[in-house]
Amino acid sequence: MEAKSLLQQVEFIKEIDKLKYIQRKTKLFNSDRCENDAEHSWHLAMMTIILAEHANQPINVLKVLKMVLIHDIVEIDAGDTFIYDTTKSHDNTEEELLAAKRIFGLLPADQAKEFIEIWIEFEEGITEEAKFARSMDRFEPLLQNTSNNGGTWAEFDVSYDKVYNKKKAIEKGSSAIWKYAENLINESVKKGILKK
Amino acid sequence: MEAKSLLQQVEFIKEIDKLKYIQRKTKLFNSDRCENDAEHSWHLAMMTIILAEHANQPINVLKVLKMVLIHDIVEIDAGDTFIYDTTKSHDNTEEELLAAKRIFGLLPADQAKEFIEIWIEFEEGITEEAKFARSMDRFEPLLQNTSNNGGTWAEFDVSYDKVYNKKKAIEKGSSAIWKYAENLINESVKKGILKK
Repeated sequence: MEAKSLLQQVEFIKEIDKLKYIQRKTKLFNSDRCENDAEHSWHLAMMTIILAEHANQPINVLKVLKMVLIHDIVEIDAGDTFIYDTTKSHDNTEEELLAAKRIFGLLPADQAKEFIEIWIEFEEGITEEAKFARSMDRFEPLLQNTSNNGGTWAEFDVSYDKVYNKKKAIEKGSSAIWKYAENLINESVKKGILKK
Repeated sequence: MEAKSLLQQVEFIKEIDKLKYIQRKTKLFNSDRCENDAEHSWHLAMMTIILAEHANQPINVLKVLKMVLIHDIVEIDAGDTFIYDTTKSHDNTEEELLAAKRIFGLLPADQAKEFIEIWIEFEEGITEEAKFARSMDRFEPLLQNTSNNGGTWAEFDVSYDKVYNKKKAIEKGSSAIWKYAENLINESVKKGILKK
């Protein structure tokens, strides 16, 4: 049995290599090179470890790490949806659920179940862990765009209101980080890299 | 104080973006594109979560995750050293220690101390967590090379003995994974993608 589960686990480890090919719209810091989902997931994991102390409520850091490390794996099948895309919902789609079942389904049954549940918990955003994980997912591109002269805001002509409303979700995970983020958004308007 | 620590943490988060530019010798699965350190670190973190059950001894998964997520950050200053490089030691160098102090030193003092200690623990490879983290670091490129017709073994003319001796460290973290890995190495010889 153990040998069988290791074989299944290795198949999954090979399959998720494809995350390194999924390009996001957001660029690396001070760069015009797009970030890919694996790099993004690593960065969110680092942010989680470093910023966990600012969470509104005590959080299980290991669970948040699992969430941010796997949250975009469904995009191997479903592709990346730009957060300001007005033609396609960024929320938990049928396509993403099918992807979760196929990809996590490569794992032994107990792990497949755990990963699908953690992914759904992240998508629902109700638990403290999911709220914090989602705040990391919103905070990273904010830091990138402000270090890139507006980045995707400038590139796709995204307005202050849209940015502010999307980023406000950071507050659910951490009021302290939201306070910092809100200042950053307002400073971006003053600097002329975000249009009000 | 909290505001100050958040500012320091954000500076660190920006700095470590540079890990995405550090190219490894090893290629992505079924690809000729080099993997970068951020992608590699993400993959090791995923492998840690999935394979932890095969550890020889019970391990603190959160600690192993911290290890694999940060283990290559020193390469931002010190660069990547190819494991089969015969001109430069891959072990904990003075250059890497300086890098650890500079980069982790951007964080608030308590976190800087924790990260430097975790990185040293990983490098020393004595604790169960370090042994398992290091086994992940050896196992990923083995999977990549076998999926790439020999990959860096073929490219840099690395012999069976060298591969076997380096990979044997996997056993310290997990006998079960080493058994699988040893088979993979022997099969590679049979397939002609690794020279004995």
